Amino acid sequence: MMDAIVESRELHLRLDRLRSRMDECGLEGFLVAGERNVQYLTGKSTGRALILADDAVLWVRDLYAKVYSSTYSQKKYPFTVREMEKDAVKKFINRRRIRHLGVENVGVLDFQELKKSLKPTLCPCDLLGDLRATKSEYELKMLRASAEIAKRGMKKAFSLIEEGSEEVDVVAEVEAAIRKLGSETPPFDDGMLLASGESSADIHARARKKKIAAGSLVVVDLGARYCGYYSDMTRTMPVGKVGRKEKSLLEFVDNLREETIDWLAVGMKAADVHARVEKRIEREGYRFYHSTGHGVGLNIHEKPSLSSMSTDVLAENMVFTIEPGIYVPHGYGIRFEDTIILGKKKKENITRMKG
Amino acid sequence: MMDAIVESRELHLRLDRLRSRMDECGLEGFLVAGERNVQYLTGKSTGRALILADDAVLWVRDLYAKVYSSTYSQKKYPFTVREMEKDAVKKFINRRRIRHLGVENVGVLDFQELKKSLKPTLCPCDLLGDLRATKSEYELKMLRASAEIAKRGMKKAFSLIEEGSEEVDVVAEVEAAIRKLGSETPPFDDGMLLASGESSADIHARARKKKIAAGSLVVVDLGARYCGYYSDMTRTMPVGKVGRKEKSLLEFVDNLREETIDWLAVGMKAADVHARVEKRIEREGYRFYHSTGHGVGLNIHEKPSLSSMSTDVLAENMVFTIEPGIYVPHGYGIRFEDTIILGKKKKENITRMKG
Repeated sequence: MMDAIVESRELHLRLDRLRSRMDECGLEGFLVAGERNVQYLTGKSTGRALILADDAVLWVRDLYAKVYSSTYSQKKYPFTVREMEKDAVKKFINRRRIRHLGVENVGVLDFQELKKSLKPTLCPCDLLGDLRATKSEYELKMLRASAEIAKRGMKKAFSLIEEGSEEVDVVAEVEAAIRKLGSETPPFDDGMLLASGESSADIHARARKKKIAAGSLVVVDLGARYCGYYSDMTRTMPVGKVGRKEKSLLEFVDNLREETIDWLAVGMKAADVHARVEKRIEREGYRFYHSTGHGVGLNIHEKPSLSSMSTDVLAENMVFTIEPGIYVPHGYGIRFEDTIILGKKKKENITRMKG
Repeated sequence: MMDAIVESRELHLRLDRLRSRMDECGLEGFLVAGERNVQYLTGKSTGRALILADDAVLWVRDLYAKVYSSTYSQKKYPFTVREMEKDAVKKFINRRRIRHLGVENVGVLDFQELKKSLKPTLCPCDLLGDLRATKSEYELKMLRASAEIAKRGMKKAFSLIEEGSEEVDVVAEVEAAIRKLGSETPPFDDGMLLASGESSADIHARARKKKIAAGSLVVVDLGARYCGYYSDMTRTMPVGKVGRKEKSLLEFVDNLREETIDWLAVGMKAADVHARVEKRIEREGYRFYHSTGHGVGLNIHEKPSLSSMSTDVLAENMVFTIEPGIYVPHGYGIRFEDTIILGKKKKENITRMKG
């Protein structure tokens, strides 16, 4: 359980930001159902939250209503906690004078249901996704702590990867180490990625019962979760003596990551950053098969998206990855990934490893 | 990589089922975008698939187009694999004579985008969720294999849980064991659950850096993933001498699970099964804080849902959990969970442990 006092102050700040965005959008209310969005606003990852200009309610199952009341000082906690009885949220909304109610990007079938049962005009939008893209000081602290665990996990991986070690064994040991170092979950949703030799050319390859061969490249993509906040980093390790081409590409991708981070600045279009990285890779004679990066926070993938279709603009205190990669089908893959805190004047690479 | 020949035959069966459902619903086409639904139909977890009465197309990124063509015999594989170029899917759909196009329960914002760019009338529905609820022989085999790994993981947990062992250490060791036993991922999305003492009363409690005390109950909820298929099981272990009340409740919940499994039959309403379990728990003087069970397959939670709001009816070859639980806030929690294959005449408990 986190410190409730720090959290309450933090939660009030988040609510204030949401309310001023609601005001700009002409919304009298906002209904929050997505697990991570509920967690962002309420500090708890279960229930439904409704935010009005002068009120904020969190509906939870009876079990949690009891537990929450005792962990939060009722005075400081910005939400009234209510029990989630049948139709409780619906009835509450329909009794209030709300003309325009913001809702999240819920499934279209769920949206149609909501539309039938609620009086206000529903306005689907991603206000919270936008707000969550720029982090508070508190969040930056958690993200740094999460990155520290990831870096120590990566060191562990380096120490285990050698000719003859089995992919799956390395993954099992590293994931266990990351847990013991303080991560709340294994890396990401499906565990860390480790792919050696030919399978490193597959972006989503999973570790197999396969020995790592001398002369191969090993892509290691991992992270942690600390107080709800993810971290994400990738390194590509040569095992034994690798070919001259592989060696020069390793250097190229590693440098491209570094250059891109140096070059980045507040105010740039995320799509432009991606276009630049893509151009550099294509000039080398390869195609760039994925996006340049993604925001990291309470989700492992969130805004901003650094991809060709993105409309995001890079802003102060955004936290995102930079991950150029080159993949040669049936050959090998190379990816380097760091997570960056974008400052007004400087960039902080929170997954940089010394030495 | 799975056996491509078995897979192609299996994929043809799945496509046939979808096509006859499409026919019943008056749909000339169905657009598939959800990762697990794409995986179910195509055997690959990336891309977009379009199913027509006489055609099936899978669009993937160029990298995969190359890899897939070489792993599947083009003759047997039911999909034409195309490269996902900009607007490729949209253009293809708009050139065909499709009046009604089925789409999945995508986000309402994405649905609005689709509606703008596609000519056919869009019909959001969950045909694939319904189809996936009843499993093929091939799927049952994978689910059994996944459950075998889970059971061995549970045995490992039993061997490590004792007075003085740290929750997080046990979790790290068990997750590593599950990986080494052949699971493609750590359990579930966020790793296994292990909660001792007071935190066992929280359904979603995560393991902490906390020693397991004598006289406490430990809830262990874990599973595996094998060839894409999940497994799910829970046991509650008393450590040392526990109170008489806890002891009798342990027996009660364990028996309730057993009885419910015995009592289940094809044709029952899922909501009725839940109501029966809830009634038994309430008669004991407690509230039942979660649903009785959920389908297990390519997702850890899928149809059917055994809960009060469910409209699902239990059918042959559905695979789902039965997981009664009692939680005493600030006290302790007890849950027993098994995964069942529902047969016409008998039920197979694939997570039953001997002894």
